Formats: sequence, structure tokens, C-alpha cells
Amino acid sequence: MTKPKVVLAYSGGLDTSISVKWIQEKYGYDVIALGLDVGEGKDLETIRQKALDVGAIKAIMVDAKEMLAKDYLMPALKANALYEGKYPLSSALSRPLISKLLVDVAEQEGAVAVAHGCTGKGNDQVRFEVSIQALNPDLEVIAPVREWGMTRDEQIKYAEEKGIPIPVNLENPFSIDANIWGRACEAGVLEDPWMEAPEAAYAWTNPIEKTPDTPDTIELEFEKGVPVALNGKPMDLVALIEKLNDLGGLHGVGRIDHTENRLVGIKSREVYENPAAMILINAHKELEFLTLTREVSQYKVNVEQQMSKMIYDGLWYSPLQPALQAFIEETQDVVTGTVKVKLFKGHYNVTGKKSPVSLYNEELSTYSKDDAFDHNAAVGFIKLWGLPTKVNADVHKAEAIKAKKVPVSMNE
Amino acid sequence: MTKPKVVLAYSGGLDTSISVKWIQEKYGYDVIALGLDVGEGKDLETIRQKALDVGAIKAIMVDAKEMLAKDYLMPALKANALYEGKYPLSSALSRPLISKLLVDVAEQEGAVAVAHGCTGKGNDQVRFEVSIQALNPDLEVIAPVREWGMTRDEQIKYAEEKGIPIPVNLENPFSIDANIWGRACEAGVLEDPWMEAPEAAYAWTNPIEKTPDTPDTIELEFEKGVPVALNGKPMDLVALIEKLNDLGGLHGVGRIDHTENRLVGIKSREVYENPAAMILINAHKELEFLTLTREVSQYKVNVEQQMSKMIYDGLWYSPLQPALQAFIEETQDVVTGTVKVKLFKGHYNVTGKKSPVSLYNEELSTYSKDDAFDHNAAVGFIKLWGLPTKVNADVHKAEAIKAKKVPVSMNE
Amino acid sequence: MTKPKVVLAYSGGLDTSISVKWIQEKYGYDVIALGLDVGEGKDLETIRQKALDVGAIKAIMVDAKEMLAKDYLMPALKANALYEGKYPLSSALSRPLISKLLVDVAEQEGAVAVAHGCTGKGNDQVRFEVSIQALNPDLEVIAPVREWGMTRDEQIKYAEEKGIPIPVNLENPFSIDANIWGRACEAGVLEDPWMEAPEAAYAWTNPIEKTPDTPDTIELEFEKGVPVALNGKPMDLVALIEKLNDLGGLHGVGRIDHTENRLVGIKSREVYENPAAMILINAHKELEFLTLTREVSQYKVNVEQQMSKMIYDGLWYSPLQPALQAFIEETQDVVTGTVKVKLFKGHYNVTGKKSPVSLYNEELSTYSKDDAFDHNAAVGFIKLWGLPTKVNADVHKAEAIKAKKVPVSMNE
Amino acid sequence: MTKPKVVLAYSGGLDTSISVKWIQEKYGYDVIALGLDVGEGKDLETIRQKALDVGAIKAIMVDAKEMLAKDYLMPALKANALYEGKYPLSSALSRPLISKLLVDVAEQEGAVAVAHGCTGKGNDQVRFEVSIQALNPDLEVIAPVREWGMTRDEQIKYAEEKGIPIPVNLENPFSIDANIWGRACEAGVLEDPWMEAPEAAYAWTNPIEKTPDTPDTIELEFEKGVPVALNGKPMDLVALIEKLNDLGGLHGVGRIDHTENRLVGIKSREVYENPAAMILINAHKELEFLTLTREVSQYKVNVEQQMSKMIYDGLWYSPLQPALQAFIEETQDVVTGTVKVKLFKGHYNVTGKKSPVSLYNEELSTYSKDDAFDHNAAVGFIKLWGLPTKVNADVHKAEAIKAKKVPVSMNE
Repeated sequence: MTKPKVVLAYSGGLDTSISVKWIQEKYGYDVIALGLDVGEGKDLETIRQKALDVGAIKAIMVDAKEMLAKDYLMPALKANALYEGKYPLSSALSRPLISKLLVDVAEQEGAVAVAHGCTGKGNDQVRFEVSIQALNPDLEVIAPVREWGMTRDEQIKYAEEKGIPIPVNLENPFSIDANIWGRACEAGVLEDPWMEAPEAAYAWTNPIEKTPDTPDTIELEFEKGVPVALNGKPMDLVALIEKLNDLGGLHGVGRIDHTENRLVGIKSREVYENPAAMILINAHKELEFLTLTREVSQYKVNVEQQMSKMIYDGLWYSPLQPALQAFIEETQDVVTGTVKVKLFKGHYNVTGKKSPVSLYNEELSTYSKDDAFDHNAAVGFIKLWGLPTKVNADVHKAEAIKAKKVPVSMNE
Repeated sequence: MTKPKVVLAYSGGLDTSISVKWIQEKYGYDVIALGLDVGEGKDLETIRQKALDVGAIKAIMVDAKEMLAKDYLMPALKANALYEGKYPLSSALSRPLISKLLVDVAEQEGAVAVAHGCTGKGNDQVRFEVSIQALNPDLEVIAPVREWGMTRDEQIKYAEEKGIPIPVNLENPFSIDANIWGRACEAGVLEDPWMEAPEAAYAWTNPIEKTPDTPDTIELEFEKGVPVALNGKPMDLVALIEKLNDLGGLHGVGRIDHTENRLVGIKSREVYENPAAMILINAHKELEFLTLTREVSQYKVNVEQQMSKMIYDGLWYSPLQPALQAFIEETQDVVTGTVKVKLFKGHYNVTGKKSPVSLYNEELSTYSKDDAFDHNAAVGFIKLWGLPTKVNADVHKAEAIKAKKVPVSMNE
Repeated sequence: MTKPKVVLAYSGGLDTSISVKWIQEKYGYDVIALGLDVGEGKDLETIRQKALDVGAIKAIMVDAKEMLAKDYLMPALKANALYEGKYPLSSALSRPLISKLLVDVAEQEGAVAVAHGCTGKGNDQVRFEVSIQALNPDLEVIAPVREWGMTRDEQIKYAEEKGIPIPVNLENPFSIDANIWGRACEAGVLEDPWMEAPEAAYAWTNPIEKTPDTPDTIELEFEKGVPVALNGKPMDLVALIEKLNDLGGLHGVGRIDHTENRLVGIKSREVYENPAAMILINAHKELEFLTLTREVSQYKVNVEQQMSKMIYDGLWYSPLQPALQAFIEETQDVVTGTVKVKLFKGHYNVTGKKSPVSLYNEELSTYSKDDAFDHNAAVGFIKLWGLPTKVNADVHKAEAIKAKKVPVSMNE
Repeated sequence: MTKPKVVLAYSGGLDTSISVKWIQEKYGYDVIALGLDVGEGKDLETIRQKALDVGAIKAIMVDAKEMLAKDYLMPALKANALYEGKYPLSSALSRPLISKLLVDVAEQEGAVAVAHGCTGKGNDQVRFEVSIQALNPDLEVIAPVREWGMTRDEQIKYAEEKGIPIPVNLENPFSIDANIWGRACEAGVLEDPWMEAPEAAYAWTNPIEKTPDTPDTIELEFEKGVPVALNGKPMDLVALIEKLNDLGGLHGVGRIDHTENRLVGIKSREVYENPAAMILINAHKELEFLTLTREVSQYKVNVEQQMSKMIYDGLWYSPLQPALQAFIEETQDVVTGTVKVKLFKGHYNVTGKKSPVSLYNEELSTYSKDDAFDHNAAVGFIKLWGLPTKVNADVHKAEAIKAKKVPVSMNE
């Protein structure tokens, strides 16, 4: 009789290697390992071999960078998605993709369950489990690390007993996650918010002190909200993002230090490096200031915040998400143009921008003699704009309003 | 018979000097000049003399820096007020104060009107006129520059005829406004958004290239949202802000280049320098991440945006403003603590923060063995958090959801 | 030489009849009259003849009810659009349609201008002019009634001089506007908000006292947010709306008395009758409660409010509108089902609802023994849901929180 | 040795009576019963005796109606609090009060724990537990009904064994909760949303068919958002609310049938009766339309929704709540005046309203010859209001906008 199968998101690390054995013993399932490359620089062949070595009956490796870029990062970029105004959601955006691949493979392989390696206090367990349920509510979800409750020492003992190789550099002081949209680093000394994050917490970016003394100015071309060319040269998305990570990292761009509010109710200190993400979001936003009307620009901020929160909170596949995305998409038709970005000493300032559909109108805005703006219109505008405030003042008497303010002393 | 009186906001420049004469001739009013120091580095005595020389019957000078800091800048700081996420509203915040002083002086002097020097296409005319109406709806408002419709040449001719001295450096390529919260620069070559703002547009801040190669790390103490000490030394607000402007300027901090949406319906390129404002807002925000709950932190963003928009749009004295402020004030009781800020190469990063009422709880957040977080609680949480999404998936069948996504190809 | 042409929105009333002559004299343009039937019960043939009689060179009549229903009312219904939570925007929704037809006819006829009959204090002038500019920024817009500044007596004198027939019932105590989505009534005795609106202000609905003593219970079928059948019988939109106006009117449904905030800054008392609109919006909303997830349902309210405000404020053709509509549309795919509505004594209560994609899950919701809900999950959920509040209480000590509340006295 | 003590919220019903015994056995604690009158018409003396009979060591009874009205209902009224636009949160508002009394009594009696009788699938368990934690994070919380997992039959058996009297009418088809703000009814046949709620589900209100044929018109006076007099007679809050419940109930006012989204992730059909709450909220809202400026009125809706959600979601004692309340309070200073309400056939229409600080300005709003509105101001206003839309149209060409719309056919 064949055993039920489970598809395990497999990284090649100690936790997921132990998980292979542990699931076999605890659940009696056959384990299919799913290894993904989302840009963290893994060697998929090594991982495949490791998975088979520790007992997986099958190992499936997927280069998922393009899927990630196209289906997850671009919607986020169009939404200028920053959780709490700071974090570009790099790890959060890979979770729905990994969930989707777990479900796809499970369905293809006839598995009854999928498994992930998250602990019980992070956001990622929520993102995985809500996503998996949304995509296939009939699949069982196993979270070995959360379930087994082993200490580090017990894990090592378990690994030794089962013949699972233990990595040399086991005691990394930090917990790391990375993909092409960025790198996250937490735990260790970072847990004291009064302490400056040490250089050891960073891997992708130079400290300002070691960046070049000459800026690089690049030109990014966007079409409908998506970057399509760098310095006039069309590039595919993954290549462009990787290039910006390199260039940005060289100039010390994209370090973020955030004490964030987790979905599970606690605050957590995180250090992120997101060179490409920050360069692109900033450039995209600046192009929007040129091409979106005031009303769209100012309302879109609300949608962006909601979408960022949804992504952070694991609700990518919730029905609200496509509705928010439909709003965002509709606004992006006109977000086409070129943005000049100066990379220098950790900055990624936009120093110029242009668009065939720019709404900046020099004749209207100018203070020169070519002024096309109707100055008299302002008189009527001010009257009606301020009318509710004026009627209120008439009724409540100005005295009442001023009564709230401190008196003024003047010297004549 | 005595003539009616008007109180004119007088800067000492050509426009308001002409205004003195023009109002006398056009309206037949006696002009009282009101000169203010809001931190732009004016010499009030010189201005007083100028005003009397060009024909004002009285000249009243007020050092308004402390009023500005206390009654206008601090409410804005508590609200982390940034218009469109970028501009700390430095000029916008001085308008309601100047309006209030115009009205106070008008009432004190028995004037029938007040006058300001704005043109017909900016935001400031709206801010002045709505504010003045709110404070005293019975006062007439005169806007000579908007009304007279003279070209630059006609103004010079008029000044010459009336014996008004013409400044030497009349043809400043930019239009400038400043106070302790920042400096604004517009017009001239800035009107082309593709062109990088030239160094001549900046006056308060060093270009990154010329900043020191050694960082300054400062410690800012906040009490209930207000900065009260620098590097352990208590300082009054104005002094502290001015000190931060100096220090920040030295390190190239606080340059902002914004293509903003004006209330009067056009887009406008503005270059701002706000060293103190940006350092304080950022430090304040970071302290809030440590001391406010998730719910407060995330909802407050909406109130901040609304308040920023109200300030920009000239509605400081609208009844919505004190209501928004009441919300903000209630949240600030706990925003007490110390923030370490590293000023270096244009950056003002917070490298450490602590508070007696910090909500960051190391026992809950840690990944070490002192972990106090209940990992099992997550299982129940995820179930109910994801339940609406799961029920939706059950009803709509996962296939439908996935149908919207691109198919995945994998290599095994 | 031919004269320039203007297309005038022509109602057949005194104002627009005078406008024909006045435009000819003042502007020297030839006038093309555009008469529309949006459901106010006009005879288009009579209007055509009137237009030609008073001097129009051409009269174009359009039955616009279906366009109104399909392109303007349905997007509003899907958004449950109610301005300030009360007014279903009946008049406001016809303005962008009429504007579009004016522009279409102007382009077709080679006219240089369009004209509308609004005064200077209502919302409609804004709606017309912003819409027309958006659709063809090159067309001149003429607003004769706002421009001519004639009193009622001067108008009558002018009409007599020009041979324009003066209606018998000229002195209607109210100002009326109507289309299939509702009837608006303002002015006259309504201008005193302490006074109950008199029966004379109503025309479409019975007073409760005169409604039948037996309810009518109807079944409305919706497909993707749009009503498609009444009592099991498929009906086209216009017929269905007219039928609901009749039935609702009979039962006294849809009277609204609102002191609303106009865009032009004043408050205005309006009496509306919207039987069909209110029945449909309420039924649609109730079906949404059955078929939308919590997240969609609660966020959609924000989009609905923004869209209602945009419609009221004349911004139908602003680029924000299609973006909001894209959001709404995406949510409507699942708003399919049947709603039972009981019309009785002014009420239009939903007494039952069902849907093939209902998210109401009896097994999860039931208190009977078939309960499928995991009661234990709640324990974990509550722990994490309340964690920020608990951490805050730990830090700030419960005493502090209770200190704000009044002490309690109890009898034992 | 004395046993630890627990304070149990005791209703006198079967569940909480069993809880007394069950806690004693399971936890070994002494039970202090806390009985409250929040307006559901209980006899506190009977409940006290019952509590002692089933084994409580002490029974404390509190008439909590005034505390409820003053500290919980009035903040909600000022916020026009309606969850999902429909439910006035009657049960939800009593939970933080009961929690506070549980904590107060526990502290006074030196108890180590408090206990409530909620099951594991409702909102109330969340409201109790988050509130209790917020007020005293050191108290243990026991939820016997959720913990014991007994079926109805097992409960009866347990009661018989322990000598707990079993109520005669045990099998009430519905689950009921009530206080002076309203009555909630769920479960039983209501679990089918297609089925009309039967008359048996209602207890406080007449069906429309049985209401008087003559209306009652009442006058409600508000001071700063709080009702202070009925028909010119000052009344204390509890008496006024009870009077409105009677009068409203007589006229069939305040029945609500809602399929609501619970915090715990499911949809639930609830039938509410809230005569006083609905009359007061509607009257209050109408007075606000008269006395609040447009800006306050339209922004307040967001705060109201957030506060309603917070109350529903059990976050009354979360720090966001006092901040929202501070906003609301600041707006209520001017909500003073008199509102005429006509109670008739289930309706509670406001037929007149007046205020000493009304912002309705007849001279500005009138269409009569006393018109004080500046009609010309509108021209300038429209120009600037529509300018972003116009610039957009200029850039994108009107054709593009119209291309999205259906073509129009007309008959000439």
C-alpha cells in the first residue's frame, strides 16, 4: 500500500532536513521536497541532492525568480507597497508564491498535505497557511518546527541520531531570509532597540563609509508602472532588479531598520536591505507625481496602505486583494516615462523625470510672463473653498475660536 | 476725519513696499505695517524703518519664532505632518500664525482690513484668506499683488515714481520663503522637472560632496511627543530647532525636491530644505513605533494625512483641525523617550531608541530560550484570521482563484 | 457667413427658452436645442416644437433612459452610492450623461460651445462644466442663467418682449428635478429646517397614511450586482426601475429629507423621492452581506463613500472615477442571488436572501449540534488579537487605564 | 487554608449556575457571583438568592444601568456607532462595562480570577477577555462553558447530579441578550437567511400591523451631543432611554435583521430590537448635519466606522479608543439643539430641527430674492476645482476618455 504524500518547502537547512525525517516518523507520509530559487543565491542542484540524501522520495527544484518578479513584485511596486511606510515586504511577497507552488506540486503529485518550516511566532506561518487554504482548502498543512517543540540541542541530537548532516556554521547569530526584492535579518543583538545594528547584520550593501565618492546616475524607463529599461537598454525584470541590487548595494542604498508591528501581536526589530526595491519604489512614486492627477494620487495612498497591510498580514489570496489590485492597475496606464536616479552615499534621489503624458504644465505653473493660469479664478475659489469655515466663524464668533489660542505679545 | 486703517503683512521687499503706497492710493486707507520674524534671519529694526520710510503710519515688529514653534510646529510634529508624504509644510504652517497676528493687530488697532502680498496662483493666498475669515469674518482682506496686475517692469516704474527704493538683487532667479521649520525655493530653472535642481537653489544645506567625513550622533529626548533636550541638555524649542538646522545643514540633511499638487489645481516643482523638521519628524516617528500600539500606530497615519492636507489646504482654523489635534494629542502621552540620530552624508538615521514606556518586549520578541510567547496560540489565531478567506475558497473552489494566475512550469 | 453654433441643454421651461434668444443676442451664435428624456415624464415632441418656436435652428431629442440606467445608475448601485449616507445621487448621476450628450452633439454638429441652464449656487453647474471640460477641453461653456443676472420679473419682461410663451404655473413654490433614479425638490418653505416638509413637496410617493394595509413582497434577482429579474420575470433595467418606482411609491417608500453639504460650501435642505433607488440599493447591500468576505465588505465602504463624493462633486470623468469603479467591479462578480423585499408602510425590508455563492455557512454559524466551528481556536485567537492591548496594559499598569474611568459603587 | 477566589459574571441561568459548581470542582476556587442589571428586566434579589443556593460564597448585585448609559452608550451615540452601518452595538457595549465590574470586584475581594459564561464561537468571549487583560493583566480568566465541552444533555445531567435547578422553559428556540440599548436574538430558525424572522424572535417591538394609526411626534433636546430632555422635560439618561424604548416599541421602531461579519471569522444572522438607540442615533446625526461643517461631518464618518469596529471587535480598552473618543468629543461641543421625531409605523423620521449654533444659513441657501450667496464666485471655483481634470483631459485627449464609454444614438 502506498503512503500518503506531503510536499515540503525544502531549503536545505537543518530545520527542513530534520522535517523530512520527522514527518515520515510522526505522520507516516512520504515526503516530496520542493526547493525554490527566489534569488537568495542558492544552488538548486546541491539542495536537490541533500533532500534525497535525508530521505525525500522526490525532489523538485524550481527557479521562481521570474514568477516572483512578474506576479508578486510588480503589483507591489505599482502600489508602492511599504508596510508601515518602511518595509518593502520582500519576504512577505515570496510567501504567497511559495504557497502557490506547494499547492500546485501537491495537486500534480497527488499529495494530501503540504509542509512549511515556520515557527509559531512569526508572520510567515500565517502567510503560508492562509494562502494554502485559499488555494486548496482540502490540503492538510503541517508545520513541523512549530509542532515538534525541540530546543536547538534536541534538534542536533535528533539530527545525529537520524544521520542528518549538521551545518558547520550552525550558530548564525541572526535569522536570515532573502529574495531578489530584499534581505531580512532579525534576532541576536538586534533584539535590543537601543543598540545600533552591527555591520554583521548587513550583507548586500556597503556601509556609507565604504561607498564610492562618485555618484552613479541611472535612467529608468517605466511603461504602465513597470520598469522596462535601464540607461536606455531594455532589460527583463529579474535582470534589472538584480542589477539595481548590485549598483544600489555598492552605493550603500536600501538599508532599513524597523521596529515593526507583527500580525501576531508583538513588536519586532528587523533589519532589511532592499536596494532595488527602494530605488524602484521611489522612482515609480516620483513618476506618479508627474502623471497622476491630485485626486488619484492622494486617494491611491489609502489603497496602497491597505494593500501593504494585506500582503504583510498574509491575505494575498483574500478576495479584497484583486479588488485593490484592480484599482491600482487602472491608475497605472499613464505611469509611463523616464526617471533619472542618482545613486550616491546611500541616497537614491530622483534628479529628473519626464513623461509623454506628464500633467506638469509649465505654462500653468510658471512664474514667468508666459503664465497661462487665471489668477482671478482664485478669488472665487477661495470664497467657496473657505465658505464652511466662514459660516462656522460667523455663527461661533471669532472670539470663541481665538479663545483657544494663546495670547500674543508684540513689541512695536 | 481719520482714514480707515489696514494692517499689512510687511516683509521689507519690493512687493509689500509698493503695496503700502498702492493701498493708500487705491483704497484710501492708512497702512500699519506688521513685520514678523519667524526665523528667516531678518533684521526687524531695518524692516521697521523701511516701512515707515515708504509711508506706513505705524510699524509693528514681532518676534514670532516661539509662537510658531509652540502653537503650530509642535502639533505638526506630533502628527508627523508631511504633505504627500514629502513636504513638512514649513511655509504652510506659518500662514495661520501670520493670519492670527494680522487679525490680532487689526482688532487692537481698530483696522477695518488686513492685507497680504500673495499672487493669485499659489496656496498661500488661500491659507491667508480662509484663516483671516475664520478668525474675524468681518475684516476686509486686500491682496494688492493679486489685484494690481502689474508686470515686473510696471512695478519698477511705479516704485521709481513713488520714491520706493528698489533692491539691488531684484532679479533673484528663484522665489524664496523661509522660517525655522524650513526653506522653500521655486520658479526659475526649477520649472523643468527633467532638470536637476542647481546648487544655487539651496542655501541651508551642504551638498553631500562637501559634508564632513565623520558622523555626528546626537541624542534627542522627547516628552509627550515634544523634543525637550539635545545630548542630555534641556533646550527651549526654538534654540533646539535652530541647532538642528545648523547641524543638519552641515551634514547635508533635509533637501527635498517635490512636484506637488497645489490646492489651486496645478502641479508645481518645489525645492525645500528642512534639516530640523526632517530629523525631528523621523526621530518622533521612530519613538512612536516603540511606544504606540499597532492599532494606534496604523490608524494614526490616516489622521496624519488628513491633518497634513488640512494644513496645506489652508484649513488650520477649520473646526476639523482641533478635532484631529485632539486625536493626536491623546496618542502623545506615551511618546516619551530618547532617540539616537546619526547625521552623516545627508542621512539622519535613528540608530537606537529607548523609552520608559516602550512596548517592545524582549521576552515576547526574542528567538532565544527566554521566549515568553505562546507558540500554540498561533494555530488558533491563524484558523480564525484566515476563516473568511477559507470559507470563500470553499465556496468558490480553489480552481477559480488559481484560474486568474499564470500557470507554473518547473524542472524536476 | 455661417454663425458659430452652440448646443443648449433644452428643457422646454422658461429659463432655457429665454436662453435660446439670449445666447443668440449676446453671443451671436446659432442655437441647437438638445432635449433629453431621462425619465421625468416629458413629451419630447412638444419640447422639440417649443425649441424651434423660440428660435433654435435645430432640435435634437434623445431618449436617454437606457444610457442613464446602464452607464451611470448601475455603477452607482454597485457602489451603494449614497451621498452623506442618505442621498442616492439621482440628479447628480444624470449630469455627466447630459454633459456627454452635449459634447457628442456639439462634435457631431460642429458647434463651438455648449450651454446649460444652471444658476451660480448649485452643484449642477460644477458637474456640467467639469464634465464638459473633461470630455472636450476645447469647447466653450455658456451658462446663460448664471450670466444674465435677471430677476424673475426681468425674465418675464424679457420673455414678453421676445415673444417667448410664459408658462401658466410659473410660480411653482419648489424647484424640481427628476429622472428614473429619483425626484429632487428644494426651495420655498423647505428652506426652514424646523418645518416639516409639506405633502406638496412630494409627487411620486404616498404618505404612509394612504399606503395599502397589505404588504407587497417582491423577489429581486441580481447577477453580478445588477438586477435582472423581478418576481422571477426577467426585465430590462429601465422597466424594472420604473416598476419599482411605481410599487415603491404606492407603499410610500423612498422619501428622504436631507440638510446636505453642497460642494459650493453651503448647507441646503433637499427633499428627495427615490423608491426604486432605495429598494435596489438596500437589496443589493443585503446580498453583499451574504456574498462578500468581511475584508471586502468593510473596505468597500470607503470606496463607496469616495465614489459617492466624486459623483456629488462633479468628478465623474476625473481619472479617479474609473479606478474606483475598477475596484467595485472586481467585487461584483459574486454578487449574484435573490433577495426578498417586503414593501409596506414606507418600509422596504429584506426578509430573505439566498445565493449560489453565499458565504453564510450554516455548519459554521449554527448553535445546534451540527456545529463545525473549532471552539478551541478562539483561545489562541484571543491571545494574539488582544496581545498589543495586553502588552500596553502591562507597561502602563492597569491602574492608569482605570484612573480615567469613573469609580463604581455597588450594593452587595 | 483559604481557597483562591474567582468572580463569576452570574446571570441566574443554567450555564452560569452550573459554572459555579464546575469551577469549584475543576479549579478548586471559591466562587463570588456578580449579578448585574443593565436593563434586561432582571430581579437582582432572586438572582442573588439563586447564586447562594448553587454554592457561591458571596453574591454581589449591581444596578449598572446608569454607568452603562453614561460611560459607554453616550460615547457610542456621539459616534453614531453602528457596526457595518446597521447594528447599534447594544450587547457589544455592555461587555467592557461588565469586564470592568468583574475586575473591580476581583480587586476589591482579592480574587485571583474572573469568569464569564461565553462559548467559543461568539464575539463576546473576545470582548471579555481582551477587556479584562487590559484592565488587569494579572488576573486569570476562566471560560467554563467554552472549556467544559458538555452537550445540552450532559449539562442537564450534571445539573441534576449537583442539585442545580433546571429552568422550565429551557429550550428557548433563540439565544437572547438585552440591555437598555437593545435586545439581540440569534440561533434557531434564524440560521436560514432565506427565512423571514418570525414574530417570536421579537419581544420589545410591535409588528407594523399592530402599531397605532396615529403618530407620536416627540421633541428631543441635545446638549453637546447628549440627549437631556424629552418634549421639553429634562430627564435623566436611563429614564429617557427606557421611555424611548417603550414609545418606539409601541410604534414598531428599531427592528434590525443583519447577517453580520463576526470577529471570529464567520457570518451570523442576528435579529436586533433597538428602539431608543435608533431614534437617538438618527436624531443625533440629523442635528449634526445642521451644526457640523462639511469637513467635520464627512471626516467624522471614518472615525465613527473605526470606533464601531473597535467596539465590536472587543477593543474598548485599547489605546486607540480614547484617541478616537477625543476626536469625537471635540466635535460635540456644538451638537446642541432640538430635534422633532415622528414615530409612526416603524419610522422615526426627523421632521424638524433647530439649533442656536445652526450652520444652515437661510440667506446663503435661499433661492428667494434675499440671496446673499456670491454667484460669480462659482465661476472661479469651478475653474480651479476642475483644473486637474481639465489638464488631464488636455494631455490625454478627450477621445481617450470617451473611448471607454458606449457610443450614443439619438433621434433628431
